[in-house]
Amino acid sequence: MIFVAVLGYGVVGSGVVEVIKKNRLSISQRAGEEIYVKKILDIRDFDDCPDKELLTKNSDDVFNDDSISVVVETIGGKGIAYEFTKTALSKGKHVITSNKELVATHGPELLRMAADNNVHYHFEASVGGGIPIIRPLNNCLAANEINGITGILNGTTNYILTQMNRYGKDFNTALKEAQANGYAEADPTADIEGHDACRKIAILSSIAYNEYIDYRKISTEGITKLTLADMHYAEISGSVIKLIGRSERVDGKIYATVSPAFINKSHPLANVEDVFNAIVVRGDAIGDAMFYGRGAGKLPTASAVVADVIDVVKHKDNNGKNIWTINTDENIMDADLMETRFYIRLEVKNRDEAEELVKTMFGQVDWIPSEIKVAKEELVFISEKEAEGVLRKKVKELAHNSCIKEVAGFIRVLED
Amino acid sequence: MIFVAVLGYGVVGSGVVEVIKKNRLSISQRAGEEIYVKKILDIRDFDDCPDKELLTKNSDDVFNDDSISVVVETIGGKGIAYEFTKTALSKGKHVITSNKELVATHGPELLRMAADNNVHYHFEASVGGGIPIIRPLNNCLAANEINGITGILNGTTNYILTQMNRYGKDFNTALKEAQANGYAEADPTADIEGHDACRKIAILSSIAYNEYIDYRKISTEGITKLTLADMHYAEISGSVIKLIGRSERVDGKIYATVSPAFINKSHPLANVEDVFNAIVVRGDAIGDAMFYGRGAGKLPTASAVVADVIDVVKHKDNNGKNIWTINTDENIMDADLMETRFYIRLEVKNRDEAEELVKTMFGQVDWIPSEIKVAKEELVFISEKEAEGVLRKKVKELAHNSCIKEVAGFIRVLED
Repeated sequence: MIFVAVLGYGVVGSGVVEVIKKNRLSISQRAGEEIYVKKILDIRDFDDCPDKELLTKNSDDVFNDDSISVVVETIGGKGIAYEFTKTALSKGKHVITSNKELVATHGPELLRMAADNNVHYHFEASVGGGIPIIRPLNNCLAANEINGITGILNGTTNYILTQMNRYGKDFNTALKEAQANGYAEADPTADIEGHDACRKIAILSSIAYNEYIDYRKISTEGITKLTLADMHYAEISGSVIKLIGRSERVDGKIYATVSPAFINKSHPLANVEDVFNAIVVRGDAIGDAMFYGRGAGKLPTASAVVADVIDVVKHKDNNGKNIWTINTDENIMDADLMETRFYIRLEVKNRDEAEELVKTMFGQVDWIPSEIKVAKEELVFISEKEAEGVLRKKVKELAHNSCIKEVAGFIRVLED
Repeated sequence: MIFVAVLGYGVVGSGVVEVIKKNRLSISQRAGEEIYVKKILDIRDFDDCPDKELLTKNSDDVFNDDSISVVVETIGGKGIAYEFTKTALSKGKHVITSNKELVATHGPELLRMAADNNVHYHFEASVGGGIPIIRPLNNCLAANEINGITGILNGTTNYILTQMNRYGKDFNTALKEAQANGYAEADPTADIEGHDACRKIAILSSIAYNEYIDYRKISTEGITKLTLADMHYAEISGSVIKLIGRSERVDGKIYATVSPAFINKSHPLANVEDVFNAIVVRGDAIGDAMFYGRGAGKLPTASAVVADVIDVVKHKDNNGKNIWTINTDENIMDADLMETRFYIRLEVKNRDEAEELVKTMFGQVDWIPSEIKVAKEELVFISEKEAEGVLRKKVKELAHNSCIKEVAGFIRVLED
């Protein structure tokens, strides 16, 4: 019999309690032991909680109870969740979390603590909600050298982009609707500025490349500047715009970015719509494999947490010693050094002059026809592959030229 | 140090040897021990094999060598592979295989033997090539009751259908090209008649529902009767035609089929093209999750085999006791009892009469406009949801009516 404590009875925490109860029989079969939630720690009152008798506000009821061997941390954030995780690990309790912020920030320390205390620290639910991605990276693709990860990692922004693309809503309208439907929070900053996706690609990359990737070093750009005009030109060029978290390993160096990107419609990520997430992993043996599903939500996320609990129960004597080494060198390259093609949209004062200027500065480019927008005098093209820093410099120069009014769009183009 | 023997040095077997050598460092790190191939058993001669010194034609070199703890069976078929697998398990060696035919036929016996001898019998590579699907079903989705699996499980047929759909080639031309490109075998029966997909959906369903699903009881239909006209009507109705392996669990009973099916273009499987495979798993907590990648090929399949080897090394003292119970009741329902919509294409002698007849017999149907094919006098529609047996009976009746020349198309429509 395994006793679990759930810390934080919010959306995910209550989902975990529900799933463990609902599927107790099959979960016990798979784990080889019966699993019960013994305590739920939360400072709030829950009058109509069906498991009222399990609730406590006193953390001693969890940490001083030696019969509780597994702690599920679904509090979130880096404050009390961090303290509780350290306490649990130091007391020899396995910890399962959905807390991407904590893992992305303190992952190396917490994994080390877990190894030192011979317990597990698992966080499948921290990326991709219910989608199995962390365990596949660790186990199923273990025969591969992983050289790239590309993902739609944030459901809120993907919902907004789908609404813009499908119904021609502008960003602000789509955001407001996402908030009204519960897909975006009152303060949507972490989603729409790409911070959430950034933490997730940092976690996935740390696992894939087996060294800690600090999310603070990842070049991150959100979707707030995207316009329907950009969506329109993406469509014309056979692409869609998605918020993409991406990392690649080239000659031992890692390039990582979060930004909107043009994706060709034939790319498997192009068809990932609404709040769904998907992650493409590139391995040297398997080629590209994609994992797709609901990136958030009560039960999908709980499904991932409970899978971790079952895994811990099955392998409780063998913690796997999963450690993220911290590379003291600059292991993440400056994104300015990455060679990429960019979509560039210019509002011009003098079209002919601007076109000549682009040809001189950028050489061979792929022009995207802008006829139907002539009123605005736009000039739109996709550049040749070049280091991002060089392109950015050229674009800045363009902007200072009298024939050009404004650089209205500048978006990465995903190669493959 | 772990010593592995590889039985059968064909495409997959040689890939396994290659991957273990190539990624030895990272594989050892992940497994916690160094892994070496000690013997390769094959009756054939391989003059330019880079690992010539490991080759043997004598199975005693494998089975009587106690230092070999893991046997990789990549022979295929149900003959010698079956005997070797039993010998290896009975001698306390873990067995890893890519042999779907053997697993689908003798899975319950071999899993039982493995459990009795306290060793593992793993077969991730038997379904979906390199795609991680069996381990995710067993572990990552362990918190879920799985109620449905829907997949594109055969790369050869998916390549043929993609060629027909994209370039308007007819079935025979596309098949010949697939053979010329090495995507289809000289005798393509197992692929194009759906037998390969049938074994795969049987294996996936056995894992998902935790009881043996006998592939011989699964209603199976291939793609040989599909025409470009069917593809055309699928397109008009916003769908594509794919060869789909599907099983559902409804009230404890299992429905399983392999057949071509109309899939709405918004379905995540609709965009799976060429030789790629993808599997959608429906769980009660996670909702739908999809796993996508290369369903065949030397290195992708080897990637899955070697992941199993690593898993065995990591958990060699804990075999998981994975057993498929054999349900003596009829656990697989007759497909005739499944309620489904069908696409029906009629060649008619008298259009008006035929239309009236369809209305009388089928009630409300969705007509698909057939204007551009008037020369052939076709009448095309999608039926209401009804038990398949009832629909088949009605269609038979239709065919006997004088106003109808022939029932030229009859294809399942995937609900969601």
